[in-house]
Amino acid sequence: MSNLWTISEDSFDPSGLRHQETIFTLGNGYLSTRGALEEGYPGDHRATFMHGVFDAAPIIFTELANAPDWLPLTIHLNGDRFSMDTGTVESFHRALDLRTGVVTRTVRWRSPSDLRATLTFERFASLANEHLLLLRCTVTPDFSGTVEFRAGLNGNMDNEGLAHWRWRGQGRRDDVAYLRNQTRQSGIELVSAMSLRGSAGRDLWDVENAPTWVARVEAMPGQTVTAEKIVAIYTSRDADPAALVDKAVNVVNQCAGWSSAHQANASAWADEWARTDVVIEGDDEAQLAIRFNLFQMLIAAPRHDDRVNIGAKTLSGFGYRGHAFWDTDIFMLPLFTYTLPHIAKNLLNYRYHTLPAARAKAKAKGFAGAQFAWESADTGEEVTPTWVPHFADKTKLVRIWTGDIEIHISADIAYAAHQYWRLTRDDAWFIEKGAELILDTAKFWAVRAEWNADTGCYEYNDVIGPDEYHDHVDNNAFTNRMAQWNLQTALDTLDWLQTHAPAKAEALSDKLQLDAQTLTHWRDVIEKMYLPVASDGLIEQFEGYFQRKDIDLAALEPRAVSAQAYFGIEGCNETQILKQPDVLMMQYLLRDHYSDEAVRVNYAYYAPRTDHTYGSSLGPSIMAIMACEVGRPDDAYEHFIRAARADLRDVRGNARDGIHAASAAGTWQSVVFGFGGLRVTPEGWTAHPRLPHHWKRLAFKFFHRGKLQEVDLRPDA
Amino acid sequence: MSNLWTISEDSFDPSGLRHQETIFTLGNGYLSTRGALEEGYPGDHRATFMHGVFDAAPIIFTELANAPDWLPLTIHLNGDRFSMDTGTVESFHRALDLRTGVVTRTVRWRSPSDLRATLTFERFASLANEHLLLLRCTVTPDFSGTVEFRAGLNGNMDNEGLAHWRWRGQGRRDDVAYLRNQTRQSGIELVSAMSLRGSAGRDLWDVENAPTWVARVEAMPGQTVTAEKIVAIYTSRDADPAALVDKAVNVVNQCAGWSSAHQANASAWADEWARTDVVIEGDDEAQLAIRFNLFQMLIAAPRHDDRVNIGAKTLSGFGYRGHAFWDTDIFMLPLFTYTLPHIAKNLLNYRYHTLPAARAKAKAKGFAGAQFAWESADTGEEVTPTWVPHFADKTKLVRIWTGDIEIHISADIAYAAHQYWRLTRDDAWFIEKGAELILDTAKFWAVRAEWNADTGCYEYNDVIGPDEYHDHVDNNAFTNRMAQWNLQTALDTLDWLQTHAPAKAEALSDKLQLDAQTLTHWRDVIEKMYLPVASDGLIEQFEGYFQRKDIDLAALEPRAVSAQAYFGIEGCNETQILKQPDVLMMQYLLRDHYSDEAVRVNYAYYAPRTDHTYGSSLGPSIMAIMACEVGRPDDAYEHFIRAARADLRDVRGNARDGIHAASAAGTWQSVVFGFGGLRVTPEGWTAHPRLPHHWKRLAFKFFHRGKLQEVDLRPDA
Repeated sequence: MSNLWTISEDSFDPSGLRHQETIFTLGNGYLSTRGALEEGYPGDHRATFMHGVFDAAPIIFTELANAPDWLPLTIHLNGDRFSMDTGTVESFHRALDLRTGVVTRTVRWRSPSDLRATLTFERFASLANEHLLLLRCTVTPDFSGTVEFRAGLNGNMDNEGLAHWRWRGQGRRDDVAYLRNQTRQSGIELVSAMSLRGSAGRDLWDVENAPTWVARVEAMPGQTVTAEKIVAIYTSRDADPAALVDKAVNVVNQCAGWSSAHQANASAWADEWARTDVVIEGDDEAQLAIRFNLFQMLIAAPRHDDRVNIGAKTLSGFGYRGHAFWDTDIFMLPLFTYTLPHIAKNLLNYRYHTLPAARAKAKAKGFAGAQFAWESADTGEEVTPTWVPHFADKTKLVRIWTGDIEIHISADIAYAAHQYWRLTRDDAWFIEKGAELILDTAKFWAVRAEWNADTGCYEYNDVIGPDEYHDHVDNNAFTNRMAQWNLQTALDTLDWLQTHAPAKAEALSDKLQLDAQTLTHWRDVIEKMYLPVASDGLIEQFEGYFQRKDIDLAALEPRAVSAQAYFGIEGCNETQILKQPDVLMMQYLLRDHYSDEAVRVNYAYYAPRTDHTYGSSLGPSIMAIMACEVGRPDDAYEHFIRAARADLRDVRGNARDGIHAASAAGTWQSVVFGFGGLRVTPEGWTAHPRLPHHWKRLAFKFFHRGKLQEVDLRPDA
Repeated sequence: MSNLWTISEDSFDPSGLRHQETIFTLGNGYLSTRGALEEGYPGDHRATFMHGVFDAAPIIFTELANAPDWLPLTIHLNGDRFSMDTGTVESFHRALDLRTGVVTRTVRWRSPSDLRATLTFERFASLANEHLLLLRCTVTPDFSGTVEFRAGLNGNMDNEGLAHWRWRGQGRRDDVAYLRNQTRQSGIELVSAMSLRGSAGRDLWDVENAPTWVARVEAMPGQTVTAEKIVAIYTSRDADPAALVDKAVNVVNQCAGWSSAHQANASAWADEWARTDVVIEGDDEAQLAIRFNLFQMLIAAPRHDDRVNIGAKTLSGFGYRGHAFWDTDIFMLPLFTYTLPHIAKNLLNYRYHTLPAARAKAKAKGFAGAQFAWESADTGEEVTPTWVPHFADKTKLVRIWTGDIEIHISADIAYAAHQYWRLTRDDAWFIEKGAELILDTAKFWAVRAEWNADTGCYEYNDVIGPDEYHDHVDNNAFTNRMAQWNLQTALDTLDWLQTHAPAKAEALSDKLQLDAQTLTHWRDVIEKMYLPVASDGLIEQFEGYFQRKDIDLAALEPRAVSAQAYFGIEGCNETQILKQPDVLMMQYLLRDHYSDEAVRVNYAYYAPRTDHTYGSSLGPSIMAIMACEVGRPDDAYEHFIRAARADLRDVRGNARDGIHAASAAGTWQSVVFGFGGLRVTPEGWTAHPRLPHHWKRLAFKFFHRGKLQEVDLRPDA
């Protein structure tokens, strides 16, 4: 069954270089490194991204700075530099072992001078010590001659052209060379340290910003020579800047070598998989894909840092620049809340720590309370680009409105906080941090609500819902309903606090100015929220949506572009085609509030009008669940497998920019809440399996109020 | 008199680092290298800019790519790395020899380990072979021990954060290491090659993108050791990409060493100064400053390339990104036209080669003929940024209008072409290229003119004149008058061609569709151009200018910011304060068309309303001439010396961004046309000196119809 834990390929396709770099990303929750080749390849996008290591950038405000490169290792066979774009690659195999996070590449190569050798490169970022990175290379030549290893650290990195690092010095302590860099704007210091161990003596080429160990071995035909490159990285986010060199050098010196480090790493991974693994029998593709998607979340999840979040593309690519969206709170959090709640807490604490920025944003817009940024980075300030250059005409600019009016994220964060509490019953955290998230977002919603005297309703006008094909809409159902939920949950939270932590209730009421008049207003907004429902239960996505052009999406197939690209931004806005179905999302999040019939009616209307293939990558995993809910298992599987394949098969053509994190984490929700039918209620939990017809077994685990639950499901028999 | 050829300093002031880097820029018309230190200094802006080596950049469209660095040379004294920011600098002297373009730095240094040595660094870019760059270092230690030289090429360069280069390979041919890079967007290949010669054996540290020669010498106290770094650079703009390595390596190998290369360089410089030097006696500051300013123009002037222009900051800094403006045609061209006409021809040919882009611009705007770009780079396409981020609020953008409506540049280019021809009588060039520049810009002006039936005049509305404190104005006097001149000169050109090159006249008439109807229209536009003049000769800068607020500028002194910063962009627009005086500029360019009295009237009105100190750096040199014209020598000197000091004393506080090229070249015009009173007429030339009272002598040379003229003036006696 080893192949169900391994992503592998047997040929090297340069046309898919950047996609494969994303797929072979490794990491440990502290950093991730794309699967670029150690020796480099023309046009590669080699990158290591580290949580919280942001630096200023034009237009996008800030981005994760591509860190100094720890990968460089070039092999010279009697002077011929090994590379995949010279000589002849006679065989190639690359594998990512999901169980341990090790990437292995084996190449049989004939050099331009007709020397043959077999080269194997292995690497991992230790999950046992997040500062430790290992790289091992073995070379078995067919010839007698010199094998030279050149192992470097390279501070000359950039983000697709934008250089974020300055050189700040370098040095050597016995067998360890180190390099010191600093981000140009944010001033974060980073020290990387490196040793090269193996069967030969070595020299240091002490070139500025690229210190390089060089080791030469006289090799015999068939005799394998090995080099181990041991790297450690620390930043001034982790420790006192003056201590960084000591710390990094110590980690390298204390590493006994590949074998012991690999053992510790494998052991740490085994612990993670013991909680998170999902077993699917009867569908090898689904089995491998769910593990791949879980792996991507596990390497992106901050384990020891609660001041960082997970970007929409994890740490695996340049897409969205490391910025976090509601993707974390709604799509990723459930996985962690259910299986690794300490990680969920870190991610929610990040939101808590960014409350000052959320309050500043609300205030700047003339509101009150906490309005969270649509795109968020180190401080939580809004980092959605305001304008971006027009794709076709660089003298023109396109206004991006999401940072201004896609306001639902504040309710999404409150929802995630509440869900974490509901599942874990981590009252201490809820009292200390969670309650404030819920109360201060509610405060925002109450102030942001607009009273319409004509209808006698509160409204949210000029917003964007999750469905971004339609912007500047009034009374988006998802936004209005989630705002109402947030306000009601805030009132419930205050009640609960008054019973269980009365001092905190009083302190928060003071701090957030939650006087009687305010709470009365909240109740009024809840009661009079504009939330029309047709007699059959159909909910209009936003005011006037049903008057938009009704297009038969199916008639446009086969279609290789999004509906937005097909009709144009404005053209698409005029139709009923959805990037993702807001009403179904709302019913998913607040499932207990809707009857099965109400779900069926809305599914029947919105599913055919949704651009599942090229709309939002967030949609399919949730669609899979809702299809299960309405008893359409074949549809459910189609949506699920589309999400599961998003990156592995690059179904949207942009996996080169990084992993679709919401989709990856969403597949876990599809399996657990959709096919597994897991429901947690105040009384406990139940699972009502509705497995795809070809699945023989579905097994997963989750924590419920601190205890690991095991669920093992077979087809209805 | 050596000090009148030398810019020097005796102390190192890190707070003026970037200003001094600009001042100690060297070059040879192919490239320039800022005066950064060989070994680096924190916060330095080390840069080498090469004509035509542009690469795409956001917002500004394209910029000169900071080339791979040829300077790196670090010295290690028994392991202590020499740098100005460690140990103790016991003495320091730096000098730029304007006669030969050699920069020398001598430092007496005590290392952190208390080792003392005297180090001297010398460098130049050969004017005899523009691909050849020399660097020599001598070290005289007070101690016995190892002196190590590390000489590198560094491809890891960026433009203030934007990386333009990719690594494309490197190698070694005997004692020459080479590095191959390529710009990321424009695909220009560049090969740099390097040897390190001296008293020791050497190793190559073959680190990627930073090959480094290392030589170690065991030195004795008082014994001087020397290393010579010889570098050559070629790009794919110069030669077949496949031949670049051969060419660069050959240049290094054929260089016999510092002494012979220096001799050839000095000889080439002597030839240049023999034509261009200006002698001023009685005013050492003015003497040194005019030579410095001439030097800056000589190192920026392309000698073997007519597809490039000189940017507003020459090749000496990041300001204006290498883009060329009217600064070249109106402020720099006269120096070259009069003293080095082959360079003037190269610069005018650049405009000729960019006619396709100018025609495309006119067409895209709904006009015809040639509308030249306000900012121009490799192709002549408009590269003025359309929007730039707001200084104070990065979510906002500021619209830049100059690229849309500062249209006078098309007439300025025609003027420069005509002036070159008038002075050189280079009929062959005029027939082949110059005439077309004049005719096609005239075509633009005729189509761009708007008929006003109410006034019976042709107008140019919604423009920006040279005075950029006022934008979106109607009927700017400079624009209208220069357009009229351009049209009339085009008619004269066509007449002349019909006599002297009738085939060309016919070919151009066909190509540009200059039929009888068109020419009749041109005459109509010329005759009915809106050009009001008051009875006393006063000309209103633009329609409604006299109604703007009349501010007493003198009453704002002392003032350390521009009037625009003082009043705000909109506030300044509402006043009569000028960034530079358009009417005086117009009278300067078309001097024969205005009576002395008309000049006096306009000078009296506009001079006190011009922001001489912090307005345009283009203004003072022309103001100096006009002050001479109206018999105000003291005012003239004040304007002249302000221009002469612009960079040397950093009077505007932004010399760190590069040399103010228009100001530097303008000082030559101040001296020759202002104080020297040179006038060239169809009959010959005359000089009517009106020297500053303390000047004892003014001597200069210029070519008149191919013959070198010598002018030697003394005070009126």
